Amino acid sequence: MDTSVKLKPIGIIHTPYRELEGIPIQSRFGEKSRGHIELFPEYRDGLKDVEGFSHLILIYHFNREKGVRLVGRPFLEDQSHGVFAMRSPKRPNPIGFSIVKLEKVDDTGITFSEVDMLDGTPLLDIKPYVSYFDSRRDVINGWIEKHFQDGKKPEQTNLES
Amino acid sequence: MDTSVKLKPIGIIHTPYRELEGIPIQSRFGEKSRGHIELFPEYRDGLKDVEGFSHLILIYHFNREKGVRLVGRPFLEDQSHGVFAMRSPKRPNPIGFSIVKLEKVDDTGITFSEVDMLDGTPLLDIKPYVSYFDSRRDVINGWIEKHFQDGKKPEQTNLES
Repeated sequence: MDTSVKLKPIGIIHTPYRELEGIPIQSRFGEKSRGHIELFPEYRDGLKDVEGFSHLILIYHFNREKGVRLVGRPFLEDQSHGVFAMRSPKRPNPIGFSIVKLEKVDDTGITFSEVDMLDGTPLLDIKPYVSYFDSRRDVINGWIEKHFQDGKKPEQTNLES
Repeated sequence: MDTSVKLKPIGIIHTPYRELEGIPIQSRFGEKSRGHIELFPEYRDGLKDVEGFSHLILIYHFNREKGVRLVGRPFLEDQSHGVFAMRSPKRPNPIGFSIVKLEKVDDTGITFSEVDMLDGTPLLDIKPYVSYFDSRRDVINGWIEKHFQDGKKPEQTNLES
């Protein structure tokens, strides 16, 4: 039985990042950058009332990522971790997930800030970010905790060459 | 050019919900239920250090959902909204997203609570929920706000028949 799941891009994400060099490691570190979702015309009716939300969840295809690494070293440290304990793009299914700030909905799509994806990334879904569902408290952040606790921020929050 | 994205399930999510009736509308309302991710053996190395996180992001296939509704009425009210302003499963790409609470990692996968998916759901990805990236403040929740503000909770948080 073929259990594979076939998805089709609903749009293209345009961003200032043509290459991985300099790209923020997470959307939170891309505050100042702007991106634009070009939503394909057949999906634009689905934008109704999106402008009421301040944040959106984008689900997209890491289309330039070919490899899978089940255990590897993340950007932030030299210890290795399992892929399901990391946000690395080298995943069994190359699906990216970012929370971004909505700036403006227009006829062709959405302008947003807090950008951490490559220019030309195929978009698979947009969902509204809902604080009552998605903003959790009493979270324990595993190996990532030590890099951020007490208001600390990693020295490098953008990929180096 | 074929731009479609072909994904393969990495496991199966087992839950107490065989049918949509009674299922929580969001994982936050499924506090007491338990689910189990049966991760296929070839991916289990990727579980290393997952147990350090309290919450996980699950991305999965709404495999029993056939239709797409670009504009429709959500469960919570009679007004209609665009699909990208809702968490409805009737999406152009039937991708589900839930934040769940990790209970235990074992040899076969992960036991979790806060369950809102059907039994037998094909799993596509697991990512660690990281409060520093994912828990946003100053969020405006569009049309959903009025159903939750001032600590309110909708009367119905589970699907009715």
